[in-house]
Amino acid sequence: MNSRLFTFVGGKVGTWSVVQVEAVVGDSLPITERLDVVRGAVPATPDGAKWVLRGVTSNVRYITRAEQDFLVAKQADLGRPQATRAALIPIKKNATWWDLPQDERRRIFEESSHHVKTGLKYLPAIARRLHHCRDLGETEPFDFLTWFDYAPEHAQTFEELVAELRATEEWKFVEREVDIRLAR
Amino acid sequence: MNSRLFTFVGGKVGTWSVVQVEAVVGDSLPITERLDVVRGAVPATPDGAKWVLRGVTSNVRYITRAEQDFLVAKQADLGRPQATRAALIPIKKNATWWDLPQDERRRIFEESSHHVKTGLKYLPAIARRLHHCRDLGETEPFDFLTWFDYAPEHAQTFEELVAELRATEEWKFVEREVDIRLAR
Repeated sequence: MNSRLFTFVGGKVGTWSVVQVEAVVGDSLPITERLDVVRGAVPATPDGAKWVLRGVTSNVRYITRAEQDFLVAKQADLGRPQATRAALIPIKKNATWWDLPQDERRRIFEESSHHVKTGLKYLPAIARRLHHCRDLGETEPFDFLTWFDYAPEHAQTFEELVAELRATEEWKFVEREVDIRLAR
Repeated sequence: MNSRLFTFVGGKVGTWSVVQVEAVVGDSLPITERLDVVRGAVPATPDGAKWVLRGVTSNVRYITRAEQDFLVAKQADLGRPQATRAALIPIKKNATWWDLPQDERRRIFEESSHHVKTGLKYLPAIARRLHHCRDLGETEPFDFLTWFDYAPEHAQTFEELVAELRATEEWKFVEREVDIRLAR
């Protein structure tokens, strides 16, 4: 089993209650009662599931040594007891983005959009894990699934983080984004 | 079906006759009579197959706009009638490589190892397609599968290309490499 693979199941079971599902760009996902976060694969679509999304954690794609050192020093682990709010944000970027060479994607990601610099401002209040879907063997509806958790008192902080990122040049390449908010 | 997925089947059928299988670093793969290159997935291990390797073509990971422009201008398509020799080279890099931030992998890949600059010297004689395996949902034995084809009169040119790359700093991170040569 690939320990980097995670499966997110929108259905009737799981630790997390679904509070809100919002289509930010493009089509939404069906609203479900609960979300189950599973380490590894699920053999078949679980009973009562309306959707299943999969992704793998992987090597970093854009960040420099200096940025990585800042992130590692400041970031918190997922699953802190007080982190009873979460968000799953699946994103698909358009073909124009994926056809860009590496240096141009890096420039947009950081020099223009300050993706890392923005994220750093919200650490350690917001913890996160990025999962890649684009290079799974089968066609997936999204390129990335980002999972966040935070304490209720940081809910407004989280709104600021997502609003700031959505206003960037990088987000012009997002062709589908769903924002799923959760509580436990 | 994901049109970026390719499956390589070592077995008893396929266009390509296996001429030689060499373990360059680490364990080899079983020698087979033939190699079948399949676009898309194969539903189950085909009869007589000794191994099945899968990979997806994807966005570029290191190259700049200038390098991409040079490559596009000079590269040839796979499958030219005279390209009756081929090589499949599966590679796995070690954890040290994958833990490096993007800027350090780029430096090793090009500024130190001249991966693109070296490849460009051998275009258009050698055509190639890179497949990524590392982020497939299931654990795969390799990170990359590179497929090359060329005319018999460029066989020595191809030896020079692989020798030059294997002498680089980048190749110090390769922990498994198998070199499969083919003819049709």
